[in-house]
Amino acid sequence: MNTSESLRGVIPPLATPLGGDGQVDRPSLERLVAFQLDAGVHGVFIGGSTGEIALLDSVQAAAAARTAVGAVAGAVPVLVGAIDTGTRRVVEHARRAAEAGADAVVVTAPFYVDPHPDEVVAHFRTVRSAVDLPVVAYDIPSAIGTRLTPDIVAELAAEGTIAGLKDSSGDLTAFREVLRRLPGFPVLTGSELMADTALSLGASGLVPGLGNVDPHGYTRLFAAAAAGRWADAAAEQERLAGLFRIVGVADRGRIGFTAGALGAFKEALRLRGVIAHAATNPPLLPLNAEEVRSIAGILDGAGLGGAVEAGR
Amino acid sequence: MNTSESLRGVIPPLATPLGGDGQVDRPSLERLVAFQLDAGVHGVFIGGSTGEIALLDSVQAAAAARTAVGAVAGAVPVLVGAIDTGTRRVVEHARRAAEAGADAVVVTAPFYVDPHPDEVVAHFRTVRSAVDLPVVAYDIPSAIGTRLTPDIVAELAAEGTIAGLKDSSGDLTAFREVLRRLPGFPVLTGSELMADTALSLGASGLVPGLGNVDPHGYTRLFAAAAAGRWADAAAEQERLAGLFRIVGVADRGRIGFTAGALGAFKEALRLRGVIAHAATNPPLLPLNAEEVRSIAGILDGAGLGGAVEAGR
Amino acid sequence: MNTSESLRGVIPPLATPLGGDGQVDRPSLERLVAFQLDAGVHGVFIGGSTGEIALLDSVQAAAAARTAVGAVAGAVPVLVGAIDTGTRRVVEHARRAAEAGADAVVVTAPFYVDPHPDEVVAHFRTVRSAVDLPVVAYDIPSAIGTRLTPDIVAELAAEGTIAGLKDSSGDLTAFREVLRRLPGFPVLTGSELMADTALSLGASGLVPGLGNVDPHGYTRLFAAAAAGRWADAAAEQERLAGLFRIVGVADRGRIGFTAGALGAFKEALRLRGVIAHAATNPPLLPLNAEEVRSIAGILDGAGLGGAVEAGR
Amino acid sequence: MNTSESLRGVIPPLATPLGGDGQVDRPSLERLVAFQLDAGVHGVFIGGSTGEIALLDSVQAAAAARTAVGAVAGAVPVLVGAIDTGTRRVVEHARRAAEAGADAVVVTAPFYVDPHPDEVVAHFRTVRSAVDLPVVAYDIPSAIGTRLTPDIVAELAAEGTIAGLKDSSGDLTAFREVLRRLPGFPVLTGSELMADTALSLGASGLVPGLGNVDPHGYTRLFAAAAAGRWADAAAEQERLAGLFRIVGVADRGRIGFTAGALGAFKEALRLRGVIAHAATNPPLLPLNAEEVRSIAGILDGAGLGGAVEAGR
Repeated sequence: MNTSESLRGVIPPLATPLGGDGQVDRPSLERLVAFQLDAGVHGVFIGGSTGEIALLDSVQAAAAARTAVGAVAGAVPVLVGAIDTGTRRVVEHARRAAEAGADAVVVTAPFYVDPHPDEVVAHFRTVRSAVDLPVVAYDIPSAIGTRLTPDIVAELAAEGTIAGLKDSSGDLTAFREVLRRLPGFPVLTGSELMADTALSLGASGLVPGLGNVDPHGYTRLFAAAAAGRWADAAAEQERLAGLFRIVGVADRGRIGFTAGALGAFKEALRLRGVIAHAATNPPLLPLNAEEVRSIAGILDGAGLGGAVEAGR
Repeated sequence: MNTSESLRGVIPPLATPLGGDGQVDRPSLERLVAFQLDAGVHGVFIGGSTGEIALLDSVQAAAAARTAVGAVAGAVPVLVGAIDTGTRRVVEHARRAAEAGADAVVVTAPFYVDPHPDEVVAHFRTVRSAVDLPVVAYDIPSAIGTRLTPDIVAELAAEGTIAGLKDSSGDLTAFREVLRRLPGFPVLTGSELMADTALSLGASGLVPGLGNVDPHGYTRLFAAAAAGRWADAAAEQERLAGLFRIVGVADRGRIGFTAGALGAFKEALRLRGVIAHAATNPPLLPLNAEEVRSIAGILDGAGLGGAVEAGR
Repeated sequence: MNTSESLRGVIPPLATPLGGDGQVDRPSLERLVAFQLDAGVHGVFIGGSTGEIALLDSVQAAAAARTAVGAVAGAVPVLVGAIDTGTRRVVEHARRAAEAGADAVVVTAPFYVDPHPDEVVAHFRTVRSAVDLPVVAYDIPSAIGTRLTPDIVAELAAEGTIAGLKDSSGDLTAFREVLRRLPGFPVLTGSELMADTALSLGASGLVPGLGNVDPHGYTRLFAAAAAGRWADAAAEQERLAGLFRIVGVADRGRIGFTAGALGAFKEALRLRGVIAHAATNPPLLPLNAEEVRSIAGILDGAGLGGAVEAGR
Repeated sequence: MNTSESLRGVIPPLATPLGGDGQVDRPSLERLVAFQLDAGVHGVFIGGSTGEIALLDSVQAAAAARTAVGAVAGAVPVLVGAIDTGTRRVVEHARRAAEAGADAVVVTAPFYVDPHPDEVVAHFRTVRSAVDLPVVAYDIPSAIGTRLTPDIVAELAAEGTIAGLKDSSGDLTAFREVLRRLPGFPVLTGSELMADTALSLGASGLVPGLGNVDPHGYTRLFAAAAAGRWADAAAEQERLAGLFRIVGVADRGRIGFTAGALGAFKEALRLRGVIAHAATNPPLLPLNAEEVRSIAGILDGAGLGGAVEAGR
């Protein structure tokens, strides 16, 4: 793919719908893809943090990638996460992604092993040389405890090892420094709440987990920003901030943050009629009935009550 | 295996020797196993942090487990690490470990996904129910950012989900609390430097990375402690503390802590004639010649200069 | 003071110039104040992190506050930091600030004592009731390890305990949430590099440490933003980002971040002829000659070479 | 004082009793000192973390030090904390401690300012040269976020800048390294739960917050250890571990850890009839009636129910 064109726009990190048997619910994932394409997204990201990549076994990961590639059918690029602790593990995932038809792989720094910055650089070089696909660097220190600093990103971008950056650091200062140092380099933000700001700073696109639930909102926001209608983008962002409250309904004394956030996205998709079940992989615990009612209320308040007519 | 007897004594987390082709160097691993058995170790742990588990691909991990199981030939228990971010990923590793002939699997809390304590508990239950092997819980917050608190350990031990604990937390206060609350439960320390102290507090055994290099030292220490000769145990501990300085020779401005520690163990094993190459998996960077010379000097100082006649 | 009007605009956190005797260099501080007023700043903040508040003894802190109040002579509001670990300690500082003529005090959450959020709230209430001055909350987790969450800020603002927020968290997402929940509430950013972005999100003003060195840049930036000339604001921000590189010249292997940043501001002020000495309080170590030359080069590159004609 | 003799034995960090007026309750503090001396303690530490040093204003701090010095009347050494963010602030506290009659001052690394290790060393040198009192280094990373590494301690000890170390790091590995590198150097542990272990490793003494409540237990433990009766020391340690559960009764969803721990010590002292009130300084929130009942029950269970006949 031509990455400077492809790593642009709204590229939601899709949830991985699961069936009652614990396997990937392919019809639900196909509906989710259709729902996203209908909304005008510019790509999809399979096997990101929102896609429960850290919790998928190899059968699930392969099924999710293949199903999505099939459902997208070339309409937009499909990014696939190759997320693991070490370089050779990542290469295995990346090769499977390539076999499944991915257009690019998304890769974090190594973790568990407390790498030196030069080892982070070596990691990306080894992965890139092992697969014939563009590599998008994924900065997510909240999950892995290591930063992709602007220095690391600049080095990898300048030499062509990475084709883009997905920034989920929450650090807009570093985000801006990357954009300053790498004019034209595709930088995507993972932020649900600062999408308009990131675009105004020069981001090429958005990878919002909340985009699962309301892709139309993010494509409107992106279109407004692309047209320079910043007040419209900000208004859409404010509406999405209201919707994002679904992530906070879970009682953190009972289940973890990831369970609360991914569970909320899936419950909202279920309530909207896009996917059949809201189940997440173990060990994530489910939302309870009261929390699901809160999510339904927030959806209603955001004008998203009732089932969509997705992909039909 | 009878875990209360088996999870006892010196059970080093073996390095995974690699050949020039990047694959597991089976003859070297066989020599390492023989070297360990000659020294009187009570078990071996394959695929721990020292075994580069986070950096092994599936082919390497399987080769290491199978080779070690074959070389041990039932002489002592073989523990195998099933270390990954999520429950289903861990189950896949655990099943492969079982196929390779492991006597027990070693499992950390989930990571990347910021689990709630109840989700940590659920994780171990799911893994345990999926494989017909004892599960040893592995507390290593420096690698995964999550603690196995005494509450979690006590709950899992009381219900029989876990058969033992490997503690690499560095927190002897919590370690002692676990021992206080679970009399007779096997608790192994991963500490190289507090082995005698841990045994005096009631630890059932030792899992020291440095045991790769000097298993005789740790078996002497354990025997002294078992016989109540605490001054002898302390003297051996002090000698081993001197040897442990090999872990600090690497310039941390150049390579990471893991690279420095695992590289030092492998260089020392190479210098002692046990393994053929000191290579580590990517992205770890190698020690340089000056650092290797420092290791050789420390080995000499500890009376470990020259090649051993391992397993012959 | 009318805080909704006063906590607005450019309010630099002034450095505390020291003389050869280690005491506050009053003539230098007077020149610094004059330099700032000439540049059109809307207030000054004495005894912030940039003012070495954590390193000032009581004599220095009082001298700095009194000198600044005298030099400002009512032209603009003078904010004074009352930064300490516990409530009663902070009250002592706040009373001294009131005696020195401060228009408001700036207060962080308690630290050292790992407070519960309700204890953070209690802290601000007690401080506010003990002094007859507006209290500005100061969120600086990098220094104290505790956040002033949007929930805490909203509670304290709604009840009138705090008159404004100085945000140095680096977390623009939370910053924006505060602005969303508290329309019209004065929120100042401590960021040197995201000043235009913060203003576009609704910040009432700027508290940039770099404003010591180039107040004209920040007042131009603020004026551009106030007039809706966002491209001009961004261009000024980019120029200031270049200047901010002075903070990075120090060798972090030799001195700490604080020493490097505060030393750079003082060296730049000395090079610009505003203050006589660049000395910082112990235990901060000084920049070396090569680092000072780098700062001079960066100043030249930013068009700030040579001495200003400050306050004369 | 002869520090190698004086920094030895049980030296509890005394609570600072407060009266209904919020000022230091001198009669209660005098009773607490008498209670401690009756129990055979070898010193007292005023103004430590347990003494609420981070929350005391200058009047309280001076009153606590003077009252304790007077009540001790030379019977044992009186250590006084000089705890603050910066060097000059610490010097001010240290001079006041000297005026109050302290035998030594206890000093942490600087905090708030993220110091380089060389700045930590400079800090201690400056403090030492400014007061004519021995300086005890205080390693408490949980409060200040910075470690006193073995390298720093060794350098300061070798040159005579510090006379001892109080270790509250929880890191017995580093503790042991300090003892290994500095034979004969006084090292005190702040651990309530690992006192016997620390002594067996070579600690010169104990500074347990729980020693406020049960000094007799810790003096028995120390005497047993000094006589080589390690099983007796361990049995006493186990009894004290049961008593230490008072620190855990507070609902952490309601008040912070510090409030729960310091409140528990004071409630227990009140229940034992040693001090009149259990109040702590703002912003710490008090224990509730149910939590106090739990403490009373734990005291009963440890054989400490009912009021002592302190200081008579």
